[in-house]
Amino acid sequence: MTEDDRVAMTLDEVAALSRAILTKHGLAPDHVEAVTRTIVAGERDECASHGVYRLIVCVNTLKKGVVVTDAVPQVQDCAPALLRVDARGGFAQLAFEAGLPQLVAKAKRNGIAAMGINHCVHFAALWPEVEAVTAHGLVALACTPSHAWVAPAGGIRPVFGTNPIAFGWPRPGAHPFVFDFATSAVARGEIELHRRAGKPIPEGWGIDAEGQPTTDAAAALAGAMLTFGGHKGSALSTMVELIAGPLIGDLTSAESLAVDAGTGSSPVGGELVLAIDPAGFLGDAAGEHIARAEALFANITGQGARLPSQRRFEARLRSEANGVRIPRALHDDLQALLD
Amino acid sequence: MTEDDRVAMTLDEVAALSRAILTKHGLAPDHVEAVTRTIVAGERDECASHGVYRLIVCVNTLKKGVVVTDAVPQVQDCAPALLRVDARGGFAQLAFEAGLPQLVAKAKRNGIAAMGINHCVHFAALWPEVEAVTAHGLVALACTPSHAWVAPAGGIRPVFGTNPIAFGWPRPGAHPFVFDFATSAVARGEIELHRRAGKPIPEGWGIDAEGQPTTDAAAALAGAMLTFGGHKGSALSTMVELIAGPLIGDLTSAESLAVDAGTGSSPVGGELVLAIDPAGFLGDAAGEHIARAEALFANITGQGARLPSQRRFEARLRSEANGVRIPRALHDDLQALLD
Repeated sequence: MTEDDRVAMTLDEVAALSRAILTKHGLAPDHVEAVTRTIVAGERDECASHGVYRLIVCVNTLKKGVVVTDAVPQVQDCAPALLRVDARGGFAQLAFEAGLPQLVAKAKRNGIAAMGINHCVHFAALWPEVEAVTAHGLVALACTPSHAWVAPAGGIRPVFGTNPIAFGWPRPGAHPFVFDFATSAVARGEIELHRRAGKPIPEGWGIDAEGQPTTDAAAALAGAMLTFGGHKGSALSTMVELIAGPLIGDLTSAESLAVDAGTGSSPVGGELVLAIDPAGFLGDAAGEHIARAEALFANITGQGARLPSQRRFEARLRSEANGVRIPRALHDDLQALLD
Repeated sequence: MTEDDRVAMTLDEVAALSRAILTKHGLAPDHVEAVTRTIVAGERDECASHGVYRLIVCVNTLKKGVVVTDAVPQVQDCAPALLRVDARGGFAQLAFEAGLPQLVAKAKRNGIAAMGINHCVHFAALWPEVEAVTAHGLVALACTPSHAWVAPAGGIRPVFGTNPIAFGWPRPGAHPFVFDFATSAVARGEIELHRRAGKPIPEGWGIDAEGQPTTDAAAALAGAMLTFGGHKGSALSTMVELIAGPLIGDLTSAESLAVDAGTGSSPVGGELVLAIDPAGFLGDAAGEHIARAEALFANITGQGARLPSQRRFEARLRSEANGVRIPRALHDDLQALLD
């Protein structure tokens, strides 16, 4: 792609575009702000499938009437170290923000705490949320089911969602250690981008409707995606179904897809976020042990291997200094959402 | 292998053999009982690398003087939803058993709780422990670093242990849903069994000391093992290092290997166990949602795919009815430990 095929934007311009599109399609102001923070973060960190591209997905979901556009999240204190946030059918972002202060307070009081977000519409990456938890000096783990798009190891029909797992570890004076990956072989957004670009997908990403391996993106989207790592990825995906589904009284990916009833909207369901306070285990010695973790990171980067979010943090520095460049075709599609 | 190459034993005979060997090599009675429960469970469930074979590993570790043979675990209440158990240099099993009642009580009181086991010698699978937590109606997650044997994705030198993650979910009237897998491509015990049998290992399990792919078991043991699932398995392995290492004030796998100083003993360090009470999130509705998880399992098994511990539970039924059959060469090696 040549430079001419891209449109330069500042991060403020990305935010303004996101606000304009979401407002135009009826989202209430506090949700517009919360969703825009996610969209800008994705574009800033050069996560192609979770940046402004996601506005197209959002608008589709809004148009289908799946989202309660002015939902007011309700925080419920259900146990000393647990809370639930009822998103009341709104996007997940505002519900997360509503519950975060109590999650942090409970983790600091008890050493560990968990938050179940219920009845939310979910389309975003989880790393912005685990980063928000690590900003309070806490270790974070988050996961969510989605729609039943992924076959279990040894199976041929979709059962699991892409079921991402994200983890964050606070690092003093540095970006946190963060990973966020789908338990499917790739994110569904990646296959969608291949389909949009007319490119074949690698083997191992999906099977067609007859359960046969395929390199056709559309056939895989219509058939089933595969998990990463064979039976181990399949086991992890099952765990996500359970702990961010029935454990918090919310839908499995199969149930979410049934609720969707073919509209092709973003998944509706729950999300689980855990937070652990190192000071709970370690008291005054927490700083010394957290510092010891730095030797582990140095041992990885010192042999030329990368930490999971290293590219994303490097992109963040670039984008904050120079703005971002959006493919022109995508930019045109986004402008069309304002007509 | 013909039937003649195997020795039939009842589970009581397996337990008696384990007790005799461990006692002969100086382990105190309460530790003998706790370790024997693990050994019998592994053999019963036909986990070749975690059954009586492990007695050879135990005895090696005992002979090296690495284990405090009569250690009395000390339980420390460090936060409302956390506890630590100082194993004081003994095998992990007794420390786990010492802390379990408080972990269960804290999880039921607060909705979620975590236990850090410190300063233990670890050689066992984690599934017996997550099963023990699920027996109290709780959801369980456990992990532990080991020795630095595994290279990070994109690297060539060992940093991680085999770093297993185990998860358990209680199922009413059935064995729990349980998985327990190494974040390395395979358990180190599998590579050791290949070396003992003089068999090559598949590609993707390890690299030699120069960082080149190898199918030679001994070369991989001397070089580095690889994680499962590429960068995702590597990320999970890093998480285990952090949350069952520095987070609980204990060693990373590299630090454990340094402490070992070439004796070739079992790893010394920590283990993290999480427990979540479904009733904490769901109150009286817990039973209804736990039952809903059964539809997920039926959706997996109904298409011919297996649940992770299905083979193990099937083996358990067989072994409890008919006993087990130990390879004669292994049986001879075990008898030699009594001389």
